[in-house]
Amino acid sequence: MLTNQHIAVIGGDARQLEIIRKLTEMNADLSLIGFDQLDHGFTGATKCSVNEVDLTKLDAIVLPVAGTNMEGEVDSIFSNEKVILTAEHLSKTPSHCTVYSGISNSHLQEMAKKASRKLVKLFERDDIAIYNSIPTVEGTIMMVIQHTDITIHQSNIAVLGLGRVGMSVARSFDALGANVSVGARKPEHIARITEMGLKPFHLSSLATEVANLDVCINTVPAQIVTSEVISKMPSHTLIIDLASKPGGTDFRFAEKRGIKALLAPGLPGIVAPKTAGKIIAGVLTQLLIEQLKEGEEKNP
Amino acid sequence: MLTNQHIAVIGGDARQLEIIRKLTEMNADLSLIGFDQLDHGFTGATKCSVNEVDLTKLDAIVLPVAGTNMEGEVDSIFSNEKVILTAEHLSKTPSHCTVYSGISNSHLQEMAKKASRKLVKLFERDDIAIYNSIPTVEGTIMMVIQHTDITIHQSNIAVLGLGRVGMSVARSFDALGANVSVGARKPEHIARITEMGLKPFHLSSLATEVANLDVCINTVPAQIVTSEVISKMPSHTLIIDLASKPGGTDFRFAEKRGIKALLAPGLPGIVAPKTAGKIIAGVLTQLLIEQLKEGEEKNP
Repeated sequence: MLTNQHIAVIGGDARQLEIIRKLTEMNADLSLIGFDQLDHGFTGATKCSVNEVDLTKLDAIVLPVAGTNMEGEVDSIFSNEKVILTAEHLSKTPSHCTVYSGISNSHLQEMAKKASRKLVKLFERDDIAIYNSIPTVEGTIMMVIQHTDITIHQSNIAVLGLGRVGMSVARSFDALGANVSVGARKPEHIARITEMGLKPFHLSSLATEVANLDVCINTVPAQIVTSEVISKMPSHTLIIDLASKPGGTDFRFAEKRGIKALLAPGLPGIVAPKTAGKIIAGVLTQLLIEQLKEGEEKNP
Repeated sequence: MLTNQHIAVIGGDARQLEIIRKLTEMNADLSLIGFDQLDHGFTGATKCSVNEVDLTKLDAIVLPVAGTNMEGEVDSIFSNEKVILTAEHLSKTPSHCTVYSGISNSHLQEMAKKASRKLVKLFERDDIAIYNSIPTVEGTIMMVIQHTDITIHQSNIAVLGLGRVGMSVARSFDALGANVSVGARKPEHIARITEMGLKPFHLSSLATEVANLDVCINTVPAQIVTSEVISKMPSHTLIIDLASKPGGTDFRFAEKRGIKALLAPGLPGIVAPKTAGKIIAGVLTQLLIEQLKEGEEKNP
């Protein structure tokens, strides 16, 4: 339980509601900042502004997945008011107060550093990345169905990379009856692809592997779907790039060749906001409990 | 091969292009009626109107999936001209000339009967229904992803009926990690559901099986998702009805209770027109070859 833990949840989207729900279940004391237009009432949670909250009592600050923008502004779909977080705010919190966000930028990182507060980027964690690969895969399936005139079943699909997302993508398209090949570099990945009953190939020979592709799904955050690779694809090939911005595809060349190439947006929050919120809530709660235990050990 | 077989392809949508492509490959003599705005040229295929074609030479007439309307009109997305087929047209064909459509109505059936020509409704065939279940499943997956805020993975899904479509639906949602239960009546279906590793239940106890459902997918063409059943569902349950019109759901009651219930349209032609066309083309070609062989045996 998180009894007597003071946590400020600042801004966000539908995913934050699952986090608030979970933290409420765990009996935390919640201050909801940037939620003035939220109708739903949560027991033990108080709506307030960033100037009203007692910063000196906070054990944790939970930011939206995106963190802040470069001016410290925090987006909230539940408020029209601007919420701005500053290094001064952070400095007023107790030294053990931890800031949780999904991803981060240099501004947020700088603020945390200046105030000497720990910043946890949840989306860099392997467990979150693997859980999030589930809605990412379902969003990818949806995009492939929407943007092709053939079935996934019996289509030729290459997945690039066998990382946290690549493995989930490969397994699910295989389960739907596609002919899945997976490109990787590490020998242990080639071994795993073989074990999974899929066709492995080395990414260095990617250009020779795309001649019969219906769909190419990239998960590698490096420019590997180059103009040379794209020029070898059939004109009907669909490229879906799941790697974080700017992706690993030469989008300009793809457009020039008339090949449809899509940089997938953050799919979990779009296709399954409730599940995406539960994923963050589950791991966040675990981390808050660990933080509480560590604090108790230091100050018994 | 279908050399020297004269076939008239009348109207249709993108699916017909796959049929034309396949029949051209098989060397058939094709007359394309209602395709005047089609840019693509096919070798061995001649565009003409229904009055220009030599009906006395026709071995087969291929209609669109929908057949004709109640006035004998045949829809074509490749023409602005009205194409009307009459019993008189059919009477002028040789007696062995066979008419192929997907489904039919009383008007088309009456015409064929009047002219004593065989009418084959392809969509009543088991093989077509099973092949078509593949794009139907993918369209269903797309609809579930679009209309829920949770992942298919770990959601509670009931499939009603283990027929040609139900089995494909159950298998694919299971492969995506859903908790799938399947309702059926026949003991051999209950046995098969068990063998597939899914949870079987008898459709007579449907009302007691829906209390924790996230998604209910009906494939049974009878009113089984009644107001009593719907009233036991959680308010967030999504109902997708794949049974042919008017479906097996009390849609009015679902709307009244605020439960989203969708009667799925002909999904294969929408989500995968190319594959859907290839499915029809494959079975049609097989039937035309059989028809040719039978004719040769009768008149050696």
